[in-house]
Amino acid sequence: MERTLVAEAVKKIGEKVRLEGWVNTVRDHGKITFIDLRDRSGIVQCVGSDLEKVSPESVVEITGIVAKRPEKLINPKIKTGSVEIQIETLKVISAAAELPFDMGAEDLNLDLPTLLNYRALTLRHKKQQAIFKVQAVIIDAFRQSLLKKDFIEFQAPSIISAVPEGGAEVFKIKYFDHEVYLSQSPQLYKSLLVGAFERVFSVNHIFRAEPSVTTRHLTEVTSLDAEFGFIDSWKDVIDMEEYVVRFIFSEVEKKCGDELSLLGATLPKLSDKISVLKLREAQEIIYKRTGRDVRAEKDLAPEDEREICKWSLEEKGSDLVFISHFPTKKKPFYVYPDPSDPTYGFSVDLLGRGVEWSSGGQRLNDYKEILEHVKEWGLKEEDIELFLQSFRYGVPPLGGFALGAERMTMHILELKNIREASLFPRDMERVDLRLSK
Amino acid sequence: MERTLVAEAVKKIGEKVRLEGWVNTVRDHGKITFIDLRDRSGIVQCVGSDLEKVSPESVVEITGIVAKRPEKLINPKIKTGSVEIQIETLKVISAAAELPFDMGAEDLNLDLPTLLNYRALTLRHKKQQAIFKVQAVIIDAFRQSLLKKDFIEFQAPSIISAVPEGGAEVFKIKYFDHEVYLSQSPQLYKSLLVGAFERVFSVNHIFRAEPSVTTRHLTEVTSLDAEFGFIDSWKDVIDMEEYVVRFIFSEVEKKCGDELSLLGATLPKLSDKISVLKLREAQEIIYKRTGRDVRAEKDLAPEDEREICKWSLEEKGSDLVFISHFPTKKKPFYVYPDPSDPTYGFSVDLLGRGVEWSSGGQRLNDYKEILEHVKEWGLKEEDIELFLQSFRYGVPPLGGFALGAERMTMHILELKNIREASLFPRDMERVDLRLSK
Repeated sequence: MERTLVAEAVKKIGEKVRLEGWVNTVRDHGKITFIDLRDRSGIVQCVGSDLEKVSPESVVEITGIVAKRPEKLINPKIKTGSVEIQIETLKVISAAAELPFDMGAEDLNLDLPTLLNYRALTLRHKKQQAIFKVQAVIIDAFRQSLLKKDFIEFQAPSIISAVPEGGAEVFKIKYFDHEVYLSQSPQLYKSLLVGAFERVFSVNHIFRAEPSVTTRHLTEVTSLDAEFGFIDSWKDVIDMEEYVVRFIFSEVEKKCGDELSLLGATLPKLSDKISVLKLREAQEIIYKRTGRDVRAEKDLAPEDEREICKWSLEEKGSDLVFISHFPTKKKPFYVYPDPSDPTYGFSVDLLGRGVEWSSGGQRLNDYKEILEHVKEWGLKEEDIELFLQSFRYGVPPLGGFALGAERMTMHILELKNIREASLFPRDMERVDLRLSK
Repeated sequence: MERTLVAEAVKKIGEKVRLEGWVNTVRDHGKITFIDLRDRSGIVQCVGSDLEKVSPESVVEITGIVAKRPEKLINPKIKTGSVEIQIETLKVISAAAELPFDMGAEDLNLDLPTLLNYRALTLRHKKQQAIFKVQAVIIDAFRQSLLKKDFIEFQAPSIISAVPEGGAEVFKIKYFDHEVYLSQSPQLYKSLLVGAFERVFSVNHIFRAEPSVTTRHLTEVTSLDAEFGFIDSWKDVIDMEEYVVRFIFSEVEKKCGDELSLLGATLPKLSDKISVLKLREAQEIIYKRTGRDVRAEKDLAPEDEREICKWSLEEKGSDLVFISHFPTKKKPFYVYPDPSDPTYGFSVDLLGRGVEWSSGGQRLNDYKEILEHVKEWGLKEEDIELFLQSFRYGVPPLGGFALGAERMTMHILELKNIREASLFPRDMERVDLRLSK
């Protein structure tokens, strides 16, 4: 008999079906046993008498008749709540050992180390699964939004030969007789590719030897990178990013309604147009609202980011806000200085719900200006040869942005720690399990 | 005036347009100059008189009138061949330095080191671009094929804490006070995730410290990984892989007609069903066809792979053939031994046009059997703790496969060297440029 998915069972009332899945919970009422069976499509209640003992999380095959439940026993919380399976046969395919904690509970209620130490198991919980279903939709929506705009996907290398901007937080690899590095960003690759393909994007892993354990940093994250040419100004970059973010939200809304409500999450609020504040304007607002004078600072501190997002939500009805015009010299060499005041550049961060989601902006495209910056920033030309090569042979005005997939997942779902938004989070103390000295 | 893409110009005969792009070629006929202008949508001929000098590959803005060409001057080779742009203004946006070789030629005709040393430039050639447009379609088609079958995408980590199967060809990373490694395969992660999500796939980079320079190995490649549970037998894995490969071919055919004909490539031939040969059957065929007796070998040598693909094409009309039943002990610990003769396992390679495209098969799912293999293969349990954890708590019969994106690109397009199928190929001597000691 063909396998029927749990979610399909509701359409087969009165028929005999064969189900396969995991035992989500067992409730033993003496002679009668209730088994909630879980597969990739959902959960359904099965009931039988004189069944062999079966442990939670075991993989089983159940055959039985799909029966309509009496009106008062309908469970409105699940999609299969109007039926139950009257078990005829139950076969254990793969027996589970005794569980270290209750996996059938509505919430796992585990501390973070336990959640991660038992990652292979805890990922079976519906709320954990919901997080990564949303993440998959976020990442695919990023790609689909850009394919619609004529962008081409490329594979950004992880291994790089030089660290042009200094190597404090870079991982070193022993590479035959050489030393190479793990990429912190595909920035130079995506920019040079604009010279060839005009519009490119990449979903790639980037690596940062972050030497502290915080709630928002990992050593390996998924970066959603886009870059494109023939822009008229840095505003085109912001517009493209806003389009992408709105597209992602609308896909999550369309495809992840169940996951959002399961997690009690609501999508960030957006007004008609996301506000764009210059850094100095944002600092002025913070000063006026809080009395804290950060007006001479070169960047926003975490509490500034929270405050300006609060302002945005209260005054503009938007959980998201762009901050532009950071001091040129505090940013990488390729940032395009504002001609009206070159002390500040066309760099743009997107903040959402109190933290940075992305950075981007317009880049220099004139070869001579790039060379001047390379010198001023103290870089070696040979470290960025392929990048320079592209601009030597003609590249249009360009810009782009990079969104962090885990950060977006975390803040769309209002998770407390970025580790909850990574299947297998890596930090200085953990690579799957805690690293022992 | 809004920018018009080159490919849109044919629809605007008689209208004034503004084009932006690269100077693909310049032909100076004294007073009259012909410029072939290239943008992401194609190439169009522009013509003007008394123009300022402009160098090939410079980025320019051209305004002019779209004019129909006289019948005998129509160029049937390009999509815009029925029109030309009568230049009114020409503005250089970004001037290109003198080119090291002719980028306007039909073929670049460069040796491989030169092609790669000038990667940022050579990627602008239409035949180079065609390769990576096809690659992007291959990768996206892989994902779309599996999304249609209810698979969920996951992010496989690149950083791993242990190398369970020995570390000869693994890259080491200095990780704070520890040593960690670059992943050679997401195999253990995708298998353990079947315990949670049932059906998973990943597009991820894998790393191999291949200590020799061959035409088919790189140190960093893009792996297309899929794994799924509740299979009835290893044949389900083959069927799923065949479905994915056919889906990819049909997407390439549908979306890359221009690229295929530009590169003079034809898609691999497929019969109704891809043949499946056991290793011993393949060796017998090779013996009969060539007299070479490889019947006791534990694997196919490169010339065996070529011969059996030749057989498949001649006898079965298919460029692709599956080889199964390799000696169990020559394969990783997780391979499922054939119960009818456990000396051989349900491991399956897909060969295409003479080389291996993928490996896969059915995996062990019984926890006790896995533990026995772990012992027999001499592995340490603590090195694969998360993997074992999943199987300790119930995992259905499962299997999967991994396709190499660069290998597929190379052999679909009949390229000679895998480096041509990687934007930024890495090998023991090169990371972008040749590594100096």
